Amino acid sequence: MELSAGVWESLKAVRERSPLVHNITNYVVMNNTANALLAVGASPAMVHAREEVADFAVLSQALVVNIGTLSPDWVEGMRLAVHAARQARVPWVLDPVGAGATRYRTTTSAELARQAPAVIRGNASEVLAMAGEAGATRGVDSTRSSDASLEAARGLASRLGTVVAVTGKTDYVTDGSRVVAVDNGHPLMARVTGMGCTASALVGAFLAVEPDAVLAAARALAVLGLAGELAAEQSKGPGSLQLHLLDALYTLDEATVRARARVR
Amino acid sequence: MELSAGVWESLKAVRERSPLVHNITNYVVMNNTANALLAVGASPAMVHAREEVADFAVLSQALVVNIGTLSPDWVEGMRLAVHAARQARVPWVLDPVGAGATRYRTTTSAELARQAPAVIRGNASEVLAMAGEAGATRGVDSTRSSDASLEAARGLASRLGTVVAVTGKTDYVTDGSRVVAVDNGHPLMARVTGMGCTASALVGAFLAVEPDAVLAAARALAVLGLAGELAAEQSKGPGSLQLHLLDALYTLDEATVRARARVR
Amino acid sequence: MELSAGVWESLKAVRERSPLVHNITNYVVMNNTANALLAVGASPAMVHAREEVADFAVLSQALVVNIGTLSPDWVEGMRLAVHAARQARVPWVLDPVGAGATRYRTTTSAELARQAPAVIRGNASEVLAMAGEAGATRGVDSTRSSDASLEAARGLASRLGTVVAVTGKTDYVTDGSRVVAVDNGHPLMARVTGMGCTASALVGAFLAVEPDAVLAAARALAVLGLAGELAAEQSKGPGSLQLHLLDALYTLDEATVRARARVR
Repeated sequence: MELSAGVWESLKAVRERSPLVHNITNYVVMNNTANALLAVGASPAMVHAREEVADFAVLSQALVVNIGTLSPDWVEGMRLAVHAARQARVPWVLDPVGAGATRYRTTTSAELARQAPAVIRGNASEVLAMAGEAGATRGVDSTRSSDASLEAARGLASRLGTVVAVTGKTDYVTDGSRVVAVDNGHPLMARVTGMGCTASALVGAFLAVEPDAVLAAARALAVLGLAGELAAEQSKGPGSLQLHLLDALYTLDEATVRARARVR
Repeated sequence: MELSAGVWESLKAVRERSPLVHNITNYVVMNNTANALLAVGASPAMVHAREEVADFAVLSQALVVNIGTLSPDWVEGMRLAVHAARQARVPWVLDPVGAGATRYRTTTSAELARQAPAVIRGNASEVLAMAGEAGATRGVDSTRSSDASLEAARGLASRLGTVVAVTGKTDYVTDGSRVVAVDNGHPLMARVTGMGCTASALVGAFLAVEPDAVLAAARALAVLGLAGELAAEQSKGPGSLQLHLLDALYTLDEATVRARARVR
Repeated sequence: MELSAGVWESLKAVRERSPLVHNITNYVVMNNTANALLAVGASPAMVHAREEVADFAVLSQALVVNIGTLSPDWVEGMRLAVHAARQARVPWVLDPVGAGATRYRTTTSAELARQAPAVIRGNASEVLAMAGEAGATRGVDSTRSSDASLEAARGLASRLGTVVAVTGKTDYVTDGSRVVAVDNGHPLMARVTGMGCTASALVGAFLAVEPDAVLAAARALAVLGLAGELAAEQSKGPGSLQLHLLDALYTLDEATVRARARVR
């Protein structure tokens, strides 16, 4: 109850302050991510080149780094942006898309994870892979439940001194000791590409207004999950879900958030 | 009748087995392609860097290579992925977007086409260009009918020992001797970008469950065309078509497929 | 009244002639941009590699260069495409996304702006930055009204001998002496990413059929703004706006355009 109450406060703060969220993300989801950030009230920008990432990161209120379609030039941009963000105390989120699927993803994720992200947001397979459990990932979709990875998430968070958010049927957010669970969401969301990437981006927006990274992540996930539930109620399939989700992020009101956000 | 009957079997198999489809495709359509693959029941991944394409290709049940927004680094990734897929006997699809429009596209398409794709899927202009007929392409949209390119498609398929699928008002799939025609589809589909790219991606998903490449391609095209027809019935324009198409791919049921798939 | 009358003539010409519009644009908006061009009746292509941009630019009826997600390879592609377009007298549009936000964007915009674009289309912050006013840009969304930048736009247009279109609540198009204002549009449009990029792309399509760049730009902006108004009337949020906007671009008819286009 108390935990759920904060969801509205943070959503309201995002809408009022419209934080600038710097994204270095993958080609597949850039459009959706930008639209979800705009719908929730933030100001997104996608900037990846080494020539300008550092300049941009320090203008921003949060940085989101997503390795979904990585390549060496982009990874170099990620490194520089993260370095600049850390210097300027801009919180940053790591989305280790497909960690475990290829060595390149696993090693890049591991390297970035050591650069003090405020939050690492992944699915169960990715979190298990980052925690060192082999064979957990197939492609970029999870093959494991979030429950199965909770202990791995706690261990990873403790080891790195960060917050880990594992999304799935239930989302878990942990700093290694505290564990907050979010029960919002709908299975149809998994049929829209980049929903996890959107989650990571919203975590960035909420970090810009809420310094407690466990709360920021949980609230962002509750907002996305709730918007997904509202959208699913009106949708025949993943095409309509995507549309209604953006509308729901934009129209979510206090009464609905207070009644239906499920953070515990 | 008999040919149409197989469409449902293959769609059902895609939904049940959820094949991992590795895509190296263009920036414009990545999101749509991923969403169409998810909607039809497959598991998409977009992976292009030379550092990991080979690792990823061999994890996959099909590879789809689309040159829509090519550049040297990406072409190198395509080569490595194709090489790995061939070694691992993973079937792969070539989409020669804009072949004939520039020399770079024509030569890249020709080079890749010699690497034993299971299927080459293009519009009439692209297939004519690949068959050596000059002046057929203007930009990336076809200026020629699929009928006009059928003989070129047969010749190309025979010469390369592959299957060629030409999409248009009627779609034709041929291995040089057999010719299968698909009559599903709707003109409004041409007003949504990347519909051909989606067709190629679905061909990849169907190849993962149906080893006869002529049948796999024809069934994939029938499913997409039928979903497009159902979507067009509810759409005022290309914006709504795109949404309803994803919903239709997701909700297509046996009765509808059996009644309306038109493969001959 | 007289100015508004031309909007329909140009839209009709775009639909009839279906100009090939070559875009070098950012990853975030490629899909939307292509779909908007298709919906309005043009034929879009996204081609960026130095290996082919020059070949492609000269096939096209207009070129649109947008620096939204720039990097050195892409900037080189832009230079080559612009050079080829100028040689072939193909009109081109510059969209200086985020000019002023980082030095890289500001200098790249300035360099390209000296290559005789037919139209520069930006938001107020970008136009102020290009006119040399510091501190105007925050991220990629404007912090200033279009009214505030009108004088800067006139000065910039005069200095460069080009047409500058500043979009905002009211859009202004100027060649330094003439100023045409467009009052179409809806605030919800700002909640969909890449709406400005779509505006620039439509300006390209209209330049292909209307040699007077002031009129071409104003008419394109009127069409987009009007489509946005019609879309907003049916939309609950930015998700549905995006869909209805494409439908409206596709279905806009003469009566509606004549009654509601507001160019003065």
